[in-house]
Amino acid sequence: MQKIYTGKTKDVFKLEDGNLVLKFKDDVTGENGVFDPGANAVALTIEGVGKEDLKCSKYFFELLRKNGVKTHYVDANVAEKTMTVLPCEVFGKGLEVIARFIATGSFIRRYGAYIEDKTVLPGTFVEVTLKDDQRNDPPISKDALAMLGILTKEEYKELKEKTKEIAGIIKEDLAKRGLTLYDIKLEFGRCNGEVILIDELSGGNMRVFDGDSYVEPLKIYSYLDKGTV
Amino acid sequence: MQKIYTGKTKDVFKLEDGNLVLKFKDDVTGENGVFDPGANAVALTIEGVGKEDLKCSKYFFELLRKNGVKTHYVDANVAEKTMTVLPCEVFGKGLEVIARFIATGSFIRRYGAYIEDKTVLPGTFVEVTLKDDQRNDPPISKDALAMLGILTKEEYKELKEKTKEIAGIIKEDLAKRGLTLYDIKLEFGRCNGEVILIDELSGGNMRVFDGDSYVEPLKIYSYLDKGTV
Repeated sequence: MQKIYTGKTKDVFKLEDGNLVLKFKDDVTGENGVFDPGANAVALTIEGVGKEDLKCSKYFFELLRKNGVKTHYVDANVAEKTMTVLPCEVFGKGLEVIARFIATGSFIRRYGAYIEDKTVLPGTFVEVTLKDDQRNDPPISKDALAMLGILTKEEYKELKEKTKEIAGIIKEDLAKRGLTLYDIKLEFGRCNGEVILIDELSGGNMRVFDGDSYVEPLKIYSYLDKGTV
Repeated sequence: MQKIYTGKTKDVFKLEDGNLVLKFKDDVTGENGVFDPGANAVALTIEGVGKEDLKCSKYFFELLRKNGVKTHYVDANVAEKTMTVLPCEVFGKGLEVIARFIATGSFIRRYGAYIEDKTVLPGTFVEVTLKDDQRNDPPISKDALAMLGILTKEEYKELKEKTKEIAGIIKEDLAKRGLTLYDIKLEFGRCNGEVILIDELSGGNMRVFDGDSYVEPLKIYSYLDKGTV
């Protein structure tokens, strides 16, 4: 297995059949030594976090597979902290696609003049930001994505529809466990001409509440580990 | 004439026929006492600036009228520093619509990882930001505008098409005078069910170059004051 990339929270290896292996690490992002899945630098190491993230990812990717959604996921080995995935091309230098059901966080920081924090949105709101640490992950429109050659307008449409579908499936599964999904951050890539979900699907990708209480990213799997509901 | 609004650079009065009168002032926006048309606070007073802005606005609104574009402009009285306009409803708390021909400024601050400063864009790029001093005028997508009830998707389409048309007419007129329009900031409103151009069209609304030299907003009218070209 040849190592081809060293990431902040995962390393990437290439298999002989062309597939990739993501090796989850115990390093987490944050600021000033405090865990924050939205931050851009590794802040600390938490024993066991790689395994928790992988268990969570495995759960959600397999949930999507059961629901007929194609993703880059092939399989996972929790003991080895590895996930085998299809090789995909990222869009530009990487995009984050956010689906929101309840307005909070950066949406309120930007649009707080028009909407109150924690307002339930009338439908699934989708937005795209560039992965660009230096420029604080700026939001970007469909037109700008097309003009900069990052994503065609057809790919944007596909990405938006898949985001709604995937976020809806995850929201519904969490709801069965008494949890409320406020928003979720997804990453997509190009694979044989199709736009498919890539990266991981761990607690750090989503903002989840149990009633009025925020569920810490590392606690989400404890709710999932109860079989099918 | 009844005063109905006191603005940073203009006061607004209402006429008996329902039309409005904008009275241009010599106050200009900026930061730390330096003129910056993009800033959100009044920084200083420049003798004659109100008249320059009005002459420039009158010129461009009449150019648009000649080209068959409906705007809120009725007429202007330069000696009195007043412009009579149709009453329009602004979208939400006000939007800024930016048309870009050459990438620079905030476009590069956001998307500089993908494009170099001063790259000529392949077409007219249009984007919308909220007028919100407190939140640094955040960019906003078509979907967010619709979700927040600021603009319907049909109105967005109309606004985008009119922005391209208006920016194109102004770009072409400046080109005949040897000037290059990099970008222009427009404001629209609702008037009898139509989306039309409102506010002013002065040098502070546009980034213009004469060869490699930036043309200061207050200098633009000196290029226009040469009759039809």
